[in-house]
Amino acid sequence: MDYDKLAKMSSLVPFPAYLGFEVKRSDRDCVVVEIVLRPEYCTMGGTAHGGFLMALADFTGAIGAMEVLPEGATSTTTVESKTNMIGAAPAGALMRATATPLHIGRRTSVWTTRIETDAGKLISVTTQTQMVI
Amino acid sequence: MDYDKLAKMSSLVPFPAYLGFEVKRSDRDCVVVEIVLRPEYCTMGGTAHGGFLMALADFTGAIGAMEVLPEGATSTTTVESKTNMIGAAPAGALMRATATPLHIGRRTSVWTTRIETDAGKLISVTTQTQMVI
Amino acid sequence: MDYDKLAKMSSLVPFPAYLGFEVKRSDRDCVVVEIVLRPEYCTMGGTAHGGFLMALADFTGAIGAMEVLPEGATSTTTVESKTNMIGAAPAGALMRATATPLHIGRRTSVWTTRIETDAGKLISVTTQTQMVI
Amino acid sequence: MDYDKLAKMSSLVPFPAYLGFEVKRSDRDCVVVEIVLRPEYCTMGGTAHGGFLMALADFTGAIGAMEVLPEGATSTTTVESKTNMIGAAPAGALMRATATPLHIGRRTSVWTTRIETDAGKLISVTTQTQMVI
Repeated sequence: MDYDKLAKMSSLVPFPAYLGFEVKRSDRDCVVVEIVLRPEYCTMGGTAHGGFLMALADFTGAIGAMEVLPEGATSTTTVESKTNMIGAAPAGALMRATATPLHIGRRTSVWTTRIETDAGKLISVTTQTQMVI
Repeated sequence: MDYDKLAKMSSLVPFPAYLGFEVKRSDRDCVVVEIVLRPEYCTMGGTAHGGFLMALADFTGAIGAMEVLPEGATSTTTVESKTNMIGAAPAGALMRATATPLHIGRRTSVWTTRIETDAGKLISVTTQTQMVI
Repeated sequence: MDYDKLAKMSSLVPFPAYLGFEVKRSDRDCVVVEIVLRPEYCTMGGTAHGGFLMALADFTGAIGAMEVLPEGATSTTTVESKTNMIGAAPAGALMRATATPLHIGRRTSVWTTRIETDAGKLISVTTQTQMVI
Repeated sequence: MDYDKLAKMSSLVPFPAYLGFEVKRSDRDCVVVEIVLRPEYCTMGGTAHGGFLMALADFTGAIGAMEVLPEGATSTTTVESKTNMIGAAPAGALMRATATPLHIGRRTSVWTTRIETDAGKLISVTTQTQMVI
């Protein structure tokens, strides 16, 4: 995928653009979004806030859902999202969210998103259902 | 609860403070957090982004978990969080998150958080488990 | 609702009928299903098995989804289900599952089901999304 | 792992034993449980009932949690479980649940369980948190 398309995706949705999420790869099989963890995205101990992780995962899975929309569909919305928090990521770390599809259907798609640090430490795992609109 | 304590809670955690969440009530039975939905917290259609809703719910439930920590415990961390997205909230709306406990235990507490607009429209429902630390 | 309709509902779906779930009330606002907890439905300690609780909740919420199907729809299927296990129910206890809707839509409905013992002890809470078919 | 230990695991917990779940492999990295889908384990259309799938996943993940208990711990309990229903499995199919750990900690372990038919069709995906006791 070309750089311009990825840059456009990164700026498309206000909240993810506001936080600075960058789409690094996007196709039907896999979406990768990265961001350096700023101190203001942390919880008290200086590690990634759970809400930040869920926002990052939600955007990554939704980009995936856009990639697999069936013909005639124009958009997608998150129906539900479940996250297990696994490890702590320190401020300054490069965070990488990787979404892969569990299901690509006519009415929904289901995505699992793993967030890891650049060092490969698993931070959280999210599974979400996206409705086709 | 006095105003100073609530203001301190609102500024305690970097990510929620950065987003401007305001704790309006906090006790063992109920936590209420409010924020006016800014356009940069929205998704493409100008309504609340799912990630924003999950961040708001996560903070609200975690404040509740702090309120019910057993003696000797000092903190809490989110183990898991599940959100069902129900309705759309338009930019400019006053969002109100209300968390109530499903379970208060020695090792965990479990919270359900409903996010509604000021007009009483249900936007999302989150259930999360907080570990006692 | 008359007794015959409830009895028919209880025998409609093979797995719930096999386990002996009994529909006690069913309308758009609330579904109640009861069963006495047999020892073979338990985990090692002689209390309700998590899988049994999830099966009971799934059936109860799905009955609710049937009640609110929009015109022209004929059935429903569970898209996702999330359960928090709260307390232990002893063998022999009368278990009561009560489902209420969080959302009734054209394409989905969302239900929360609380399972309690006859003594009012909270055992588990499930939230599930049902797709309209 | 030897056959006797697996047979013992299969008969250990009343509800899974009642349903006939068979542990085929169990170690720290992976647990596999199989069962042929009987008609009484189905929903109206003659495919696996969601509650049955959740019971199968719950048992499989809990066996995994037993495998990784830290020293001094004696048991485990399911804290929460979330399932996405993906495909339909017909009565008579051999169902295979495979659990792998997302996290092995001192206080909890987190497991993802995929249920597939013998033909490799994905039926459901469950993520659950097990508390160390």
